[in-house]
Amino acid sequence: MAKPNKLKIIPLGGLGEIGKNITVHEYKDSIVIVDCGMTFPEDEMLGVDIVIPDVSYLIKNKDKIKGLVLTHGHEDHIGAIPYVLKKINMPIYGTKLTLGLLANKLKEHNLKNVELNVVDYGTTYKLGHFDVEFIKTTHSIPDSAAIALTSPIGTVIQTGDFKIDFTPLEGAEMNLNRFAELGNKGVLALLSDSTNVVRPGYTVSERMVGETFRDLFYKAEGRIIVATFSSNVYRIQQVIDAAELNNRKVILSGRSMLNVTSVARELGYLKYKEDTIIDIKDLGNYRKDEIVLIMTGSQGEPMSALTRIAANEHRQIELIHDDLVLISATPIPGNEKAVSKTVNKLLEKGIKVVYEALDDIHVSGHACQEELKLMHSLVKPKFFMPVHGEIRHLKLHAELSKAMGTPEENIFVLENGQCLEFTKDTASMGASVPSGHILVDGLGVGDVGNIVLRDRKHLSEDGLIVVVVSIEKSTGKVVSGPDLVSRGFVFVRESEDLMVEAKTIVQKTLDDLEAKKIKDWSSIKSSIRNDLRAFLYGKIKRNPMILPIIMEI
Amino acid sequence: MAKPNKLKIIPLGGLGEIGKNITVHEYKDSIVIVDCGMTFPEDEMLGVDIVIPDVSYLIKNKDKIKGLVLTHGHEDHIGAIPYVLKKINMPIYGTKLTLGLLANKLKEHNLKNVELNVVDYGTTYKLGHFDVEFIKTTHSIPDSAAIALTSPIGTVIQTGDFKIDFTPLEGAEMNLNRFAELGNKGVLALLSDSTNVVRPGYTVSERMVGETFRDLFYKAEGRIIVATFSSNVYRIQQVIDAAELNNRKVILSGRSMLNVTSVARELGYLKYKEDTIIDIKDLGNYRKDEIVLIMTGSQGEPMSALTRIAANEHRQIELIHDDLVLISATPIPGNEKAVSKTVNKLLEKGIKVVYEALDDIHVSGHACQEELKLMHSLVKPKFFMPVHGEIRHLKLHAELSKAMGTPEENIFVLENGQCLEFTKDTASMGASVPSGHILVDGLGVGDVGNIVLRDRKHLSEDGLIVVVVSIEKSTGKVVSGPDLVSRGFVFVRESEDLMVEAKTIVQKTLDDLEAKKIKDWSSIKSSIRNDLRAFLYGKIKRNPMILPIIMEI
Repeated sequence: MAKPNKLKIIPLGGLGEIGKNITVHEYKDSIVIVDCGMTFPEDEMLGVDIVIPDVSYLIKNKDKIKGLVLTHGHEDHIGAIPYVLKKINMPIYGTKLTLGLLANKLKEHNLKNVELNVVDYGTTYKLGHFDVEFIKTTHSIPDSAAIALTSPIGTVIQTGDFKIDFTPLEGAEMNLNRFAELGNKGVLALLSDSTNVVRPGYTVSERMVGETFRDLFYKAEGRIIVATFSSNVYRIQQVIDAAELNNRKVILSGRSMLNVTSVARELGYLKYKEDTIIDIKDLGNYRKDEIVLIMTGSQGEPMSALTRIAANEHRQIELIHDDLVLISATPIPGNEKAVSKTVNKLLEKGIKVVYEALDDIHVSGHACQEELKLMHSLVKPKFFMPVHGEIRHLKLHAELSKAMGTPEENIFVLENGQCLEFTKDTASMGASVPSGHILVDGLGVGDVGNIVLRDRKHLSEDGLIVVVVSIEKSTGKVVSGPDLVSRGFVFVRESEDLMVEAKTIVQKTLDDLEAKKIKDWSSIKSSIRNDLRAFLYGKIKRNPMILPIIMEI
Repeated sequence: MAKPNKLKIIPLGGLGEIGKNITVHEYKDSIVIVDCGMTFPEDEMLGVDIVIPDVSYLIKNKDKIKGLVLTHGHEDHIGAIPYVLKKINMPIYGTKLTLGLLANKLKEHNLKNVELNVVDYGTTYKLGHFDVEFIKTTHSIPDSAAIALTSPIGTVIQTGDFKIDFTPLEGAEMNLNRFAELGNKGVLALLSDSTNVVRPGYTVSERMVGETFRDLFYKAEGRIIVATFSSNVYRIQQVIDAAELNNRKVILSGRSMLNVTSVARELGYLKYKEDTIIDIKDLGNYRKDEIVLIMTGSQGEPMSALTRIAANEHRQIELIHDDLVLISATPIPGNEKAVSKTVNKLLEKGIKVVYEALDDIHVSGHACQEELKLMHSLVKPKFFMPVHGEIRHLKLHAELSKAMGTPEENIFVLENGQCLEFTKDTASMGASVPSGHILVDGLGVGDVGNIVLRDRKHLSEDGLIVVVVSIEKSTGKVVSGPDLVSRGFVFVRESEDLMVEAKTIVQKTLDDLEAKKIKDWSSIKSSIRNDLRAFLYGKIKRNPMILPIIMEI
């Protein structure tokens, strides 16, 4: 008897990490991919710009790929698409705003001829053996969706990022009823967002922030500067609403802020009076109490608008007395100090600053524990796989699922690259596939690896000393040098004695080698390295990279 | 008429930053210093171990110094003392545990002949023109004190770090009555801890954590591993108490944990049955439910015990099934990701981990808003200067003081190095003195400055390329090279083409220079640097450090 066909689900990213979300659904000759995101480099990935998933499994199986379906337009769900499209062309499905933001990104990467299919909620799309349906959810960006993928093995629901906002700005709630219907019919597996599983209770509605804005705007006497995520279209809408209510004009600043709002406005996701938004050039034509600036920099990112303004480095905007800065975001883990730094710099200049700890100026876009339970309760999945989170999030989500009645053996906490195989009644671990992170540095994709990072770390901690020696080819005699050049090691002008001593050490090493008639380069190099390292460590307990270079004349 | 003598207060550290606390009190020929702490390097201070205050003002005025008085034994209040003592010898005053911890530190630095004076609460010590009194406070380390310094100008109270714990472990509460007495007599100025001013309400008593420990210990079936600050003697005492209650032995691990507990035990601040603490060597002689390990690593520090255990790199301790890890601390800002990493690594191995977000396993040692108000209410200072905090903390504390009735013009938010001058009735800004941070890297104190850090940053982001050329002195002709060596730039084996092309670019530069008969070294170097930089940036949008070296033969 032939082996029965199984449904495979393989997360290639987003497990054991925040970001870089991508999941592969495979049945017979059909592969459907859900999301394809990027993430930011870890601290030890020095000099790296962004991190994208390893998709070699998809490249190997590209003939099977029927499409890439997107849950929403955030970078951690769409940011790696341009890089992957350069290796695999494939049709892409998503809601209007999601594809609008993606199209913008593709243009930047100069990618043409990509098939973008705008979907409607509730319609079923046939992608090979999969029937794919987009279900309306609520999140911190409009047009977000959960995905239901039905194959002959059963229905799998992938929630995407979501919160359950009963009073969302756009008027249409999350389609809980559709989750309930599918739950009633029977759902094979649920893959659910774990980002906020550590938090008890419910996430507050986006509308609450609007109330805070209205209060603060009403009282403000000078300009108002709001920093937030450019992708948080709702937040931007609420700032604009509060501005209009208080007869203020709005100026948008920061590249991504301009990009996203222009797409959102064009597609009808941002609504305002024709003359509300003004150009930054016209800033001087208005009184300070007629102005609201919305800008990037809520994370203290070095090149963002608010960071540059706080450092007096913005070409067009200077802080003035009575400015009120609202940081309408929470620091992403790792950015806490950068955000504090921005706040402190602003306060130093006498600017009033309101941030999350001080007022209700931000709400999360992710479901807390009670919302996650509601999702479980409606969907009643046979199997459960927590996604989008570090291991601590995934494990806690697994416990929550168990507490909701899912049998422990039906809960799978996977790692990226692991494969879960389903029949109609069973789930079990299949063979793993390659996975990991590809580092993007400048235009280089994947050319920065462990050796390069290790060297960057070494250089960053103690700097380097280059030792150059010229040797006559015929005789093996030193004809010039040793010359020592250092960078990032000590301030040379104040450490001349040390550098002179170091040179003497190398000279002595060379003399010893010559006396012993040792001439092979690798011995010379390693002797220089060892003797100099021992000397420096003994002298000042530092360990710079030592780079001996021999020139042959 | 002669100029009246004024009291000067000059914070040399701890303002606009967390840590590195040091304040100078000066009247006529007398200087008394309160605390002398270190801090950890900012992210951009690559390779730096610790940061200490610039005390050049004290060196210049060392004949005036009557003593250094200490509020408590935490590193951010005593950590810079060994470095400063190498420049200025001075008598030091502090409570028993504070000086016990300091003595340990002085031994490590091989500093002898330092006058350490153990003080009692309530006694007055004459230090030049200052009468100095230590007042009992409560904090996350025993033997903490506020300092009242009375000069002919008036009484100044410096709170040190404190919280108001009505049920502290050692039995004796904070001496609120003494603050009230001094308040009644009239206090010229208050310098108060601002660390937790962002938090509303009250800090919970240390005893609450003991209750959580008792619950968790009672239920635990395997070994219990508790990570906390080695200086948190109360916390360690509560772990030991819970261990004894549950018939478990305690093993201490981590260098600073062993150091601090040995001092605390010797001086009577840690109490336990003779046989409760066992040596790590005897770990194998006990069942897993008979063991508690207390160790460093609550901040995810790379070399700490818990971090090494989580990475399977500890020589003596291996994780086993059923281990329960309690992280009894909150991440210091900047350490959030390192702590999450440790948690994730432990969970990956199937170990149960409880951290602050999940249970009441930690309380702060600093006063929240209501406690700060109580301090203000008792002391009723004429002038107020918030200390210990970033600008956002200091400004918020200033607002709190204003809300308590201190006139705005009597509140001074200073920067390090600024000087506040008092008469009996007035306070005004005096002349600033030098201040700043001195970076300690290995044995080097102050030899790493901006140029070195800028180079380290550059190297860390894009690595470097060394270009070596040998030139014949007599003719100016290139006789060897150009040779290119890179580190931290690209993985050379996979980027051979790029490196070959780069070499060609440099060769062409040299040929052009020769054709134009340009021979001076600085022109040659800058041409190589410019041409190669332009080529590499155009090719892969990276900007490595380029280090041209010319050897003359």
